Amino acid sequence: MITKEDVTAMILAAKKQAGMTWDGIAEKIGMSPIWTHSAAMGMNAFPADKAALMATTMGLPQGAEDALTESPTKIWEQAVPTDPCIYRFYEIVGVYGPTLKAIIQEKFGDGIMSAIDFDMSVTRVENPKGDRVKVEMSGKFLAYNNW
Amino acid sequence: MITKEDVTAMILAAKKQAGMTWDGIAEKIGMSPIWTHSAAMGMNAFPADKAALMATTMGLPQGAEDALTESPTKIWEQAVPTDPCIYRFYEIVGVYGPTLKAIIQEKFGDGIMSAIDFDMSVTRVENPKGDRVKVEMSGKFLAYNNW
Amino acid sequence: MITKEDVTAMILAAKKQAGMTWDGIAEKIGMSPIWTHSAAMGMNAFPADKAALMATTMGLPQGAEDALTESPTKIWEQAVPTDPCIYRFYEIVGVYGPTLKAIIQEKFGDGIMSAIDFDMSVTRVENPKGDRVKVEMSGKFLAYNNW
Amino acid sequence: MITKEDVTAMILAAKKQAGMTWDGIAEKIGMSPIWTHSAAMGMNAFPADKAALMATTMGLPQGAEDALTESPTKIWEQAVPTDPCIYRFYEIVGVYGPTLKAIIQEKFGDGIMSAIDFDMSVTRVENPKGDRVKVEMSGKFLAYNNW
Amino acid sequence: MITKEDVTAMILAAKKQAGMTWDGIAEKIGMSPIWTHSAAMGMNAFPADKAALMATTMGLPQGAEDALTESPTKIWEQAVPTDPCIYRFYEIVGVYGPTLKAIIQEKFGDGIMSAIDFDMSVTRVENPKGDRVKVEMSGKFLAYNNW
Amino acid sequence: MITKEDVTAMILAAKKQAGMTWDGIAEKIGMSPIWTHSAAMGMNAFPADKAALMATTMGLPQGAEDALTESPTKIWEQAVPTDPCIYRFYEIVGVYGPTLKAIIQEKFGDGIMSAIDFDMSVTRVENPKGDRVKVEMSGKFLAYNNW
Amino acid sequence: MITKEDVTAMILAAKKQAGMTWDGIAEKIGMSPIWTHSAAMGMNAFPADKAALMATTMGLPQGAEDALTESPTKIWEQAVPTDPCIYRFYEIVGVYGPTLKAIIQEKFGDGIMSAIDFDMSVTRVENPKGDRVKVEMSGKFLAYNNW
Amino acid sequence: MITKEDVTAMILAAKKQAGMTWDGIAEKIGMSPIWTHSAAMGMNAFPADKAALMATTMGLPQGAEDALTESPTKIWEQAVPTDPCIYRFYEIVGVYGPTLKAIIQEKFGDGIMSAIDFDMSVTRVENPKGDRVKVEMSGKFLAYNNW
Amino acid sequence: MITKEDVTAMILAAKKQAGMTWDGIAEKIGMSPIWTHSAAMGMNAFPADKAALMATTMGLPQGAEDALTESPTKIWEQAVPTDPCIYRFYEIVGVYGPTLKAIIQEKFGDGIMSAIDFDMSVTRVENPKGDRVKVEMSGKFLAYNNW
Amino acid sequence: MITKEDVTAMILAAKKQAGMTWDGIAEKIGMSPIWTHSAAMGMNAFPADKAALMATTMGLPQGAEDALTESPTKIWEQAVPTDPCIYRFYEIVGVYGPTLKAIIQEKFGDGIMSAIDFDMSVTRVENPKGDRVKVEMSGKFLAYNNW
Repeated sequence: MITKEDVTAMILAAKKQAGMTWDGIAEKIGMSPIWTHSAAMGMNAFPADKAALMATTMGLPQGAEDALTESPTKIWEQAVPTDPCIYRFYEIVGVYGPTLKAIIQEKFGDGIMSAIDFDMSVTRVENPKGDRVKVEMSGKFLAYNNW
Repeated sequence: MITKEDVTAMILAAKKQAGMTWDGIAEKIGMSPIWTHSAAMGMNAFPADKAALMATTMGLPQGAEDALTESPTKIWEQAVPTDPCIYRFYEIVGVYGPTLKAIIQEKFGDGIMSAIDFDMSVTRVENPKGDRVKVEMSGKFLAYNNW
Repeated sequence: MITKEDVTAMILAAKKQAGMTWDGIAEKIGMSPIWTHSAAMGMNAFPADKAALMATTMGLPQGAEDALTESPTKIWEQAVPTDPCIYRFYEIVGVYGPTLKAIIQEKFGDGIMSAIDFDMSVTRVENPKGDRVKVEMSGKFLAYNNW
Repeated sequence: MITKEDVTAMILAAKKQAGMTWDGIAEKIGMSPIWTHSAAMGMNAFPADKAALMATTMGLPQGAEDALTESPTKIWEQAVPTDPCIYRFYEIVGVYGPTLKAIIQEKFGDGIMSAIDFDMSVTRVENPKGDRVKVEMSGKFLAYNNW
Repeated sequence: MITKEDVTAMILAAKKQAGMTWDGIAEKIGMSPIWTHSAAMGMNAFPADKAALMATTMGLPQGAEDALTESPTKIWEQAVPTDPCIYRFYEIVGVYGPTLKAIIQEKFGDGIMSAIDFDMSVTRVENPKGDRVKVEMSGKFLAYNNW
Repeated sequence: MITKEDVTAMILAAKKQAGMTWDGIAEKIGMSPIWTHSAAMGMNAFPADKAALMATTMGLPQGAEDALTESPTKIWEQAVPTDPCIYRFYEIVGVYGPTLKAIIQEKFGDGIMSAIDFDMSVTRVENPKGDRVKVEMSGKFLAYNNW
Repeated sequence: MITKEDVTAMILAAKKQAGMTWDGIAEKIGMSPIWTHSAAMGMNAFPADKAALMATTMGLPQGAEDALTESPTKIWEQAVPTDPCIYRFYEIVGVYGPTLKAIIQEKFGDGIMSAIDFDMSVTRVENPKGDRVKVEMSGKFLAYNNW
Repeated sequence: MITKEDVTAMILAAKKQAGMTWDGIAEKIGMSPIWTHSAAMGMNAFPADKAALMATTMGLPQGAEDALTESPTKIWEQAVPTDPCIYRFYEIVGVYGPTLKAIIQEKFGDGIMSAIDFDMSVTRVENPKGDRVKVEMSGKFLAYNNW
Repeated sequence: MITKEDVTAMILAAKKQAGMTWDGIAEKIGMSPIWTHSAAMGMNAFPADKAALMATTMGLPQGAEDALTESPTKIWEQAVPTDPCIYRFYEIVGVYGPTLKAIIQEKFGDGIMSAIDFDMSVTRVENPKGDRVKVEMSGKFLAYNNW
Repeated sequence: MITKEDVTAMILAAKKQAGMTWDGIAEKIGMSPIWTHSAAMGMNAFPADKAALMATTMGLPQGAEDALTESPTKIWEQAVPTDPCIYRFYEIVGVYGPTLKAIIQEKFGDGIMSAIDFDMSVTRVENPKGDRVKVEMSGKFLAYNNW
């Protein structure tokens, strides 16, 4: 039985051999690069049609589509991530978390931004002082229920 | 001597009594709401001119400006934040951290998004299926130095 | 300025002196006992009308309503709760968490039960072998977004 | 010797191949879906007759029944679960734990809800605003002994 | 309002001044020394009649009985206790925990010893090679429910 | 070279095949069931004569006796054990630890109960309200040295 | 009521004012410097006669002797001590712990060195390459009981 | 390539087969037993001549000497060691750490005992009340630099 | 009695009022800025003559010199520091720690750089691409003792 | 596919066989020893030309260059490193972290030293009292953005 870990390894190998980019793969299956990478890593489940497209695009063997459509169990080992590129985002949550909460509640009332009904993108923005990474997140506002 | 904690309490009390919003305060001092809240909470330092404006806007006593301009020591107690509104951002870093890293490195090469040369905004986006929280971050790309 | 902690203490003192129950208080303000206790403990925010009712019911001083309506920051200190009554629920999440996930995904597809658009009740069920605690939770299903 | 982990893998493979659901398997062995999944995962022990039924239903090899009836050692690795679907239940315990305790003690006196003499179900409840997950738990009340 | 912490301090002071022992206090209120100490420390709740006896025995002020009868929230700060006398018991659980489980399950089937329907005693046993501490625990066996 | 882990696995397999109990094995080697299980699990060392008896009783291969007599390194991975049957004992230490300390010191003076010069037993006690688990521990009292 | 913390503070103040050393104080009460400091810090209990001597030597007020003779609860906050002078001893336990165990068991059989029936001294040893700290520990060997 | 772990296993096997003791091995290579065990476990590096002697003494294959002379990376997994024999030393650091620091500083001034320029021995001391473990440590005093 | 914490607060207040810098204070007492700040924060002890100079420079009250000369207990609360400026140094130790070890051992043999016989400086280095922070550390090499 | 771990092992083996030093390898590829070791360990990525030089210098097989140029995920397992040589650097960050921050901010204003636009060297400095390790770090100053 092919596992999600197996498929991830197959995708990474195929991507390397073909010299593809996540942008390119994403375009082929009609999804965003962020979602495509995340699902390829096994952190999101492919809908059946996208799994089929992915299998074709990457030349995956039979049984791989099945693994791609399974609901993943999302596990991360490091409560505080050590990789500098990921840690900076953790730091932003630490420094600005209470601010995000305060501004969201000022604009929407008591509630949260969903991390499930959620999308995100990363763009390169040219800048003479040094190009910038632009991250855009969008999540549905969910108001606390009072009952 | 007035501490940063004292000033934060004064600002919150003045804001409540005057019925102001962070948007309103931010506009008065010519800064963004996210930065204004964060600096008011003592997680960022006010430049001298902004401290003066803040003191006037909020009716702060003498000595408060000094505290506003001090470099803060940024401490958060909870490695994993429990408040649901803040936790969702932590969860996004956990689930999508490796993806953010992969896409940034595909677009820029080996490096990180700065959390220091950094800005962020929160917007309310109307949507018939439920309004959405839009968070936009922008940080300078920093390439790893090889020496 | 009256804080949420102050109001919690006032409510507990008033409840004790008046010999009231959470069931009784909940009925007076037209909310459920679970929500009422949680909001009185400062873990949920009262809507303005419920805050007014609560202030009247418990004989709270001026300024208390304000505190009741503030958005709380939900913090718990113990990652693993030690109190036996609370620990048993933690144990249920530990033992049955993967099962809850599997059954929810079998019935709904890939997603989660919301803990925000959520309600809960506790009932005493008589039983000749020893009465039973019945806990009912209901949360909106949220499907993962694919984008 | 077949271990509990081996049997779990066999059950998952057989279930997939046969296109069965936990509801379907549970019905075949005359138990609830929650208990069936949990026991199949090795977090509960099958009584001898249910082990025999399970072996027949899933086409398990000889020796598997033995493993199904062994008392499991219930271990979970993550004190704070990261999977969003499981975390939401952890969050409910964090936010509402003291409330569950207070209401149980108001209704029953000083004691706990048993997590051993315990059962649970999950139901899908249709709702025009979005279907809801209904979780029902029932545990025997255990009063603290005074001696 | 007198808290459980206040009453504990009062009891300790009165006990010291009167030169009483836990054995003596326990006898006066007709309970065991272990339970009496534990309840006096605020880790168990006194039934009304025992609270009245305790108040008389220790000369507690009005309001103290109320505090004695409240359901305690049982919190311990150190996941691994450092005091050598307490650590040795933690060590016994670490070394012999799996053995206690195996022997209980051999004698009773799959289940646990209740820590709620539970009692314990400590006795001094004379021994020429050095006196021994005898600890006896008794808890109701609870079988796992299958449903 | 046969390790302690190897021998444990051999003993468990032999016990299963022969349908033996820990009580039965313990009787055969003239030791208590608790100690026998613990030593078989590799948490205690067999004296040479007991190792020989154990090897005969369980039909162990040459070299196994050696492993049985080695001093074990006692390691447990979970600072807070998750298995409910073991956790209840951890909970007892958490709730009653300070009480055990106070009563031991009242009866013996300042010191501890040894966990090394120590023995323990588990008995089933019939009871019309539900049979009870009786755990008896006995450890030598060790007084703190003053020098 | 004077607590152990109060007495510690009194002793430190008196020691400073009188310009005494731990060596000097220890000599006055006829105990070793290590034990004297430890007991003065509240980590060991004074026998009655030593408490009386200590009270005289340090000019402690009435009630202090009582506190000195109480059994302490030995708590340290840092599982890994940060102070460099203390950390080095922690490091020695980390690096040489398995070696201490192996050599003790080679010389004595399976068992431990008691940390209760225990004494320790610190001496300054002159050395032309730099003076050395000599630490001598002596603890009773305790053999594991087999039963 | 032979690793340090490989050599450790070879040494332990050869020691067992030859019925040697650490005392005996240490004498053969002209080092102390503590250092010899520690270096054999891979927690210290052998100087070239001692590695050659060790290889001869234990009959190690070619390539083993190389591994013995490599600088080890000293890692221990358990911040708080669970083995009772090792834990007692950890406990001594916890209870007496501040005392060791105070006495060292009284005798030497502000500084530490080196754990690098360091040696240690373990001796068995006969005693009619039970033999005692004597541990002697000697480390160079290092004064804090002021600059 | 003036504590080290008291003196730190006095120094910070006096420094602010006088508009001094750490560079300026360090020059006045003839020490480096890094050491001066560290000792002023209570993380190092002043030699008597430097304490006297510091007291004069900062206008400290009587008794302050005493506190400045006391050996500090060096405690930091956060195993992983959250302040971004401090975290970056922690990150450098995480990423380059094994490299520092390898290069030190290549150049010196098996041993460490002392953190006690140690000094450090921070300099601003002008650079057209952005000024740089230069940190220079110097510590005595300590070879592991073999005995 | 050759992974970064594979290449690290190949490099270490080749280095040993050829009797090379990090200094020597670094010189051959025209980089510093610190960076070379770090990149060889898989904690930094080789630019294409340096990867080619490294492959030639160390005699690496085809496919190795690819692995050398991949962006690494920088993970360290021990939040507090145990190896004494690495721990001393951790200790320096603990003791002097707040001082580094204070002096950097005095010299540069509010901001940090980059750990990305960063270089470091280690030198041996002869000294009659014992040679010293000199560590020099240089990182770009990054000012906090105010927006």
